[in-house]
Amino acid sequence: MSRIASSRVLDVRFPTSLELDGSDAVNVDPDYSAAYLTLTTDAGDSGYGLVFTAGRGNEVVVAAIESAVALLPDADVETLLDDLGAVSKALVHDSQFRWIGPEKGVSHMAVGAVLTALWDLKARRVGLPLWELIANLTPEEFVAAVDFSHLRDAITEDEALELLRKAEPGKADRIAELKQTGYAAYTTSPGWLGYSDDKMVTLAKEAVADGFELIKLKVGGSVEDDVRRMKLAREAVGPDIKIAVDANQKWEVHEAATWIKSIGDPDIHWIEEPTSPDDVLGHARIRREVSPIKIATGEAVQNRIIVKQLLQAGAIDILQIDSTRFAGPNENLANLLLAAKFGVPVCPHAGGVGLCELVVHFSLIDYAAVSADRDGRVIEYVDHLHEHFVDPVVVERAHYLAPAAPGAGGEMREESVARWTYPDGPGWAELFESGAFTR
Amino acid sequence: MSRIASSRVLDVRFPTSLELDGSDAVNVDPDYSAAYLTLTTDAGDSGYGLVFTAGRGNEVVVAAIESAVALLPDADVETLLDDLGAVSKALVHDSQFRWIGPEKGVSHMAVGAVLTALWDLKARRVGLPLWELIANLTPEEFVAAVDFSHLRDAITEDEALELLRKAEPGKADRIAELKQTGYAAYTTSPGWLGYSDDKMVTLAKEAVADGFELIKLKVGGSVEDDVRRMKLAREAVGPDIKIAVDANQKWEVHEAATWIKSIGDPDIHWIEEPTSPDDVLGHARIRREVSPIKIATGEAVQNRIIVKQLLQAGAIDILQIDSTRFAGPNENLANLLLAAKFGVPVCPHAGGVGLCELVVHFSLIDYAAVSADRDGRVIEYVDHLHEHFVDPVVVERAHYLAPAAPGAGGEMREESVARWTYPDGPGWAELFESGAFTR
Repeated sequence: MSRIASSRVLDVRFPTSLELDGSDAVNVDPDYSAAYLTLTTDAGDSGYGLVFTAGRGNEVVVAAIESAVALLPDADVETLLDDLGAVSKALVHDSQFRWIGPEKGVSHMAVGAVLTALWDLKARRVGLPLWELIANLTPEEFVAAVDFSHLRDAITEDEALELLRKAEPGKADRIAELKQTGYAAYTTSPGWLGYSDDKMVTLAKEAVADGFELIKLKVGGSVEDDVRRMKLAREAVGPDIKIAVDANQKWEVHEAATWIKSIGDPDIHWIEEPTSPDDVLGHARIRREVSPIKIATGEAVQNRIIVKQLLQAGAIDILQIDSTRFAGPNENLANLLLAAKFGVPVCPHAGGVGLCELVVHFSLIDYAAVSADRDGRVIEYVDHLHEHFVDPVVVERAHYLAPAAPGAGGEMREESVARWTYPDGPGWAELFESGAFTR
Repeated sequence: MSRIASSRVLDVRFPTSLELDGSDAVNVDPDYSAAYLTLTTDAGDSGYGLVFTAGRGNEVVVAAIESAVALLPDADVETLLDDLGAVSKALVHDSQFRWIGPEKGVSHMAVGAVLTALWDLKARRVGLPLWELIANLTPEEFVAAVDFSHLRDAITEDEALELLRKAEPGKADRIAELKQTGYAAYTTSPGWLGYSDDKMVTLAKEAVADGFELIKLKVGGSVEDDVRRMKLAREAVGPDIKIAVDANQKWEVHEAATWIKSIGDPDIHWIEEPTSPDDVLGHARIRREVSPIKIATGEAVQNRIIVKQLLQAGAIDILQIDSTRFAGPNENLANLLLAAKFGVPVCPHAGGVGLCELVVHFSLIDYAAVSADRDGRVIEYVDHLHEHFVDPVVVERAHYLAPAAPGAGGEMREESVARWTYPDGPGWAELFESGAFTR
């Protein structure tokens, strides 16, 4: 038997605003950051979790993770890992802590980091990548990991069991297939709004050469820019490559359709985050108005209850789960179940810091154990900051390889963490000294 | 000209869980707390803001308020106070900080505390209570204080101006009337779930004797308890006093109507928080199923975008704004405009720590300058913790007196703050030493 002996939460930030990597109509100057948690047991092993942020505010999430760790039930590690469904409910529904959410924003993401670290530890202890651990759960074990509260008007435990049991036949084959073929990726790397036209065109051509069949452009800054960039991108990639666009919540509900139509490309593959992620009814209206163009959202959706409503309202064609916005793996399993119930494909959001490493597991779980389908499903890929991870994702011929290393994927390299801890790491000290950044 | 010279954010907690004051089906053991902000200028005056919480997690909000203060534009106090609409947008939409919301939870409430402190300072400088300062704004000034982003499919700046101009005639009379008569209150003090039947009955009778015409009971623990308590309360208060019930988000959407009907009182005045505050569609369904019983929610609604949808979906009969859940006075002005546009009455949530002191202003603004109506509108009143405020609300004959002291109402007594700062204040030290609490 072992106990959690220590926890460490660090404010790690990368100065991405210098190059406008990750810039879009709303996130104009992000410094991609992580509130990074290490839980270490008195047996000497560790689990790793993180929350991705855009810079300022990362320190608040650090504080929240420290508080969420303090809410862990007083039990042996083995007891905790044996029922992570119970742990997730204890953290999410803590009778006092819940007030500051409930189940949303800083406190919810912090709980997610703790749960990610625990699942990571559990997977390491059995020597499996997280996706394979979870894909091999029995339907009963899978359901026990999920919090169905406020979901049962859309999916009950029994319906979830039925759905998972239906996916049992062929599961071993699909797991083997995933290990062989990986999972399709698309790339956002060409499309950041802060990039020049030339840089965008060059990167778009490179993406096609690398085998990507779908790229994504950021839009929503100005109609003129969007029209020009879309035209240039379409010329660069040709008619057979799909182009999705992403407005990052920029538009008012009633103006979205007009703007989208003004972009002037009849083959936009999807529109992502056309308006506030909180606006279920707004997404439903926009979807009606731009049909048959598809609507996608999810990266800033706060919890499974909004996901449920987006599906109930017929507001989205594609659900884009995020690996650090929700309350950890547990809530993303709920999201996979909801999407499968409503027949909506899951195409995860990734990029940021570690989001690719963490989220790939959930698409693999979805195919292996939940929807048993990967038609029309792709995982976002952005080629930034992977060098800071111990087990970085590998994308080859536009496919994520199935992670093979034990764990959930979020462990960062200690050299990176030391260098980029904010504000006192040497990387930041140098930037402050050079005047590139001011504190 | 003056500058913000210093800010102080304290973690103030009161041990209310010892008496089960404030206990309900979800908040079973709250220690009513405040993350308490003082902004002091180099002219020597101060503004006060706070966020109410239920105990654990208050420290996270403290950290978030410190971070939100750091986002204030680098400008003279006079410049800030002259355009608090611009300040609210700068804080709410900060290009990096917004990621950890967006516009919800810890970070949003923290921004709200900063804005409350600035409005408080502004009101003190002109020597008016906040409600009177805002009620006397021109329609143009009022609209400039509001962030209409993601609202314009429901209400535009022009529609808001029209609505406010319609309320201009008679405004001076209504302000005078409010100073004379105050504003109707209802009381939740008898109804906490942790109270014995005897205590509940005694307090319910006292409430009637004090002139209250509406009391509220907490429900949702068990059907049996709810039936018994409702019957006892009805016998205690007689047929002419209204009784509302509050489930504090306890129910699944599909079970709410059955539970409500099981309570067996045909005259339930409203059902409050039947399910998750995030569930717009769920509230709409429950409202259809229990009609004509009214549905109320708002105290845990995260922002104006959810408020907008609750109104668009016909999901609520009563909007219960809260003074520290939203992004300060600015967002509550948006909420008042939305409610007036949809013809839904605002009956604010209060209680907690300082919520009565802060929220009373918004009902007065609503009557004076927005809806110009107070029919069916009441402000919640709970008789706890007012002694810790410099200008506590006064409720007489079941009416809030109109605040007369300059400011927004959130200034706490320094003795109280010193005694109950957590965990090192002497009040807490004594409780730890006596064993009543463990750290």
